[in-house]
Amino acid sequence: VLKKQIAVLAGDGIGPEVCREAIKVLEAIGERFGHAFTFNHQLMGACAIEASGTPLPEHTLEACLEADAILMGAIGDPKYDNDPTAKVRPEQGLLRLRKSLGLFANIRPVTAYQVLLQHSPLKNDRIEGADMLFFRELTGGIYFGEKGRNADGSAYDHCTYSREEISRIAHLAFQSAEGRRHKLTLVDKANVLETSRLWREVVKEIAPAYPSVVVEYLFVDNAAMQLILNPRQFDVILTENMFGDILSDEASVIAGSLGLLPSASVGVHTALFEPIHGSYPQAAGKGIANPIATILSAAMLLEHFALKQEAELVREAVQHALDNKILTPELNSKAPYTTEQVGSFIACYV
Amino acid sequence: VLKKQIAVLAGDGIGPEVCREAIKVLEAIGERFGHAFTFNHQLMGACAIEASGTPLPEHTLEACLEADAILMGAIGDPKYDNDPTAKVRPEQGLLRLRKSLGLFANIRPVTAYQVLLQHSPLKNDRIEGADMLFFRELTGGIYFGEKGRNADGSAYDHCTYSREEISRIAHLAFQSAEGRRHKLTLVDKANVLETSRLWREVVKEIAPAYPSVVVEYLFVDNAAMQLILNPRQFDVILTENMFGDILSDEASVIAGSLGLLPSASVGVHTALFEPIHGSYPQAAGKGIANPIATILSAAMLLEHFALKQEAELVREAVQHALDNKILTPELNSKAPYTTEQVGSFIACYV
Ligand SMILES: CC(C)[C@H](C(=O)O)[C@@H](O)C(=O)O
Ligand SMILES: CC(C)[C@H](C(=O)O)[C@@H](O)C(=O)O
Repeated sequence: VLKKQIAVLAGDGIGPEVCREAIKVLEAIGERFGHAFTFNHQLMGACAIEASGTPLPEHTLEACLEADAILMGAIGDPKYDNDPTAKVRPEQGLLRLRKSLGLFANIRPVTAYQVLLQHSPLKNDRIEGADMLFFRELTGGIYFGEKGRNADGSAYDHCTYSREEISRIAHLAFQSAEGRRHKLTLVDKANVLETSRLWREVVKEIAPAYPSVVVEYLFVDNAAMQLILNPRQFDVILTENMFGDILSDEASVIAGSLGLLPSASVGVHTALFEPIHGSYPQAAGKGIANPIATILSAAMLLEHFALKQEAELVREAVQHALDNKILTPELNSKAPYTTEQVGSFIACYV
Repeated sequence: VLKKQIAVLAGDGIGPEVCREAIKVLEAIGERFGHAFTFNHQLMGACAIEASGTPLPEHTLEACLEADAILMGAIGDPKYDNDPTAKVRPEQGLLRLRKSLGLFANIRPVTAYQVLLQHSPLKNDRIEGADMLFFRELTGGIYFGEKGRNADGSAYDHCTYSREEISRIAHLAFQSAEGRRHKLTLVDKANVLETSRLWREVVKEIAPAYPSVVVEYLFVDNAAMQLILNPRQFDVILTENMFGDILSDEASVIAGSLGLLPSASVGVHTALFEPIHGSYPQAAGKGIANPIATILSAAMLLEHFALKQEAELVREAVQHALDNKILTPELNSKAPYTTEQVGSFIACYV
């Protein structure tokens, strides 16, 4: 019997309800294949602030460090969004968690699902067949540099990257490209930024070790255009933290399936799996949240445990739900299913 | 007789040919209204590097400082793009020009032209009616902060903003919103960056002076999504240098009319007007470049001279060309007109 402990950070808004369905699917997989998954629920985000005054309690961090993997829902509450200068904010918990666990690579597949093309804001001939994988650096750059105010009232944020921070994620991206369509696009602003020039240098040094991978370089402004103009051109996209935040969100909406996209954050300690969507507090408790992104995140988690067949089965079950339109209202307005119904349908299939 | 001197930086690639047509239109306006426009051609960009080893010769800068306005084509050559670590690059000239002239506000209208909807990558019901105006800060932030390498081989770029740098462009944006649909969206990353928090503070302080303008705040990752999901929601968008670079390029392709979009950069000294597209060296000399973005930049230049009627006439003439499909191949593949023909058609109409 394979035993794995999964820390669950359900978080805020729709987080708990989408996590519930993903856990249901993981439990079904456990039963079917004879694995013993245990789930350790912990607070993070706005709910943790309410409960203990801090978005990432020590206890939560310890549970994450001890776990074999982390399943996250979503965090955030508009109460804090409207005041980003507030001393205590849910995002701080997420950023500290990333840093403490050394989660330097955020990996996001963006796929244009055939049945969802009609929901894409892009014309279908543009988006059809698009299938890309983002590697966003997650623990460096301007997010984690020195920041503050000067005596004259001005503000500053410092962006720094070391060769090591770049090369470790670059290797992951190259390895992934080897198993895909053998193309890697580095997105930077090397015509302006020194950190971007270092990214290019390091990637150029590493490239010869992966002779089957074709490397392309794109300035970030051009990348923002190319993602819309011709998304099919991309296979693996590698970029730094801030650019990755912007571009991976941009890419996720062109596929018309924000509620379907999972992500993995991997690095030094326990890996974390979460849907890319937010906590949508307006939808919380209504049974309308799409659990598929979280369920597909659970599939990535299974793959991380080297449970390939199990992960594949979850993906098949999701495809089955898509094919049969067992979908929440945003993708099936005529005959919508609830969050719970979509989760149960997928769990039954596995 | 109104006398105005216009410095022309035709630049590289298709720059010279699109400038030629814009000048033709300005000369036609001059004749019709009795204004004396003189044009002072100067080198900047790759052509200036070839000629003198530097992308912005002193002589060019002086001519710009003396002129009443600057008309620019485009700069850049793939020779330099492929090596962003080269010591001398065309972009340095542009960045130095912006800084030397104090061009702190880059103003970019993005309009979804009815006749071009079919060329938009977005579904027409999404993009139809979209009409937004970007105010991108252009002489501050991470573009112009300290940058370099540390002893350990790491690289850094510093982002700084002062209250004054923010408030001067914010006032321009608010004033512009007052004359439009009374909505201003500040795009930032205030949940992570200290400079973004300062942007919010300053904009919040200024807002009460413009009581008719509704202010919204959007995180940059969300903005990258909203531009595609619902571009009609935007009126005036205000943002810092790096975010503006990415988002205004993203916005420009959703309208399906990259070759039609003008921009103005205004500030302390002489204002500069240029199309938003690049130098497209592949198209140079073939007569296929669309001159309309540069011609509409000339219209913004006329408006800057307070020549409202003249600017309006140029815009009407452009609309006339659009209505009659007097357009270059990318917008009229069946019966295309040349760069020169499009320019002459518009010049004849004014
Ligand atoms: C909440 C925020 C700090 C975070 C980020 O910018 O990294 C989010 O946008 C994300 O992409 O996970
Ligand atoms: C050429 C480059 C330095 C420039 C910028 O990033 O500002 C360009 O992309 C622009 O938007 O005008």
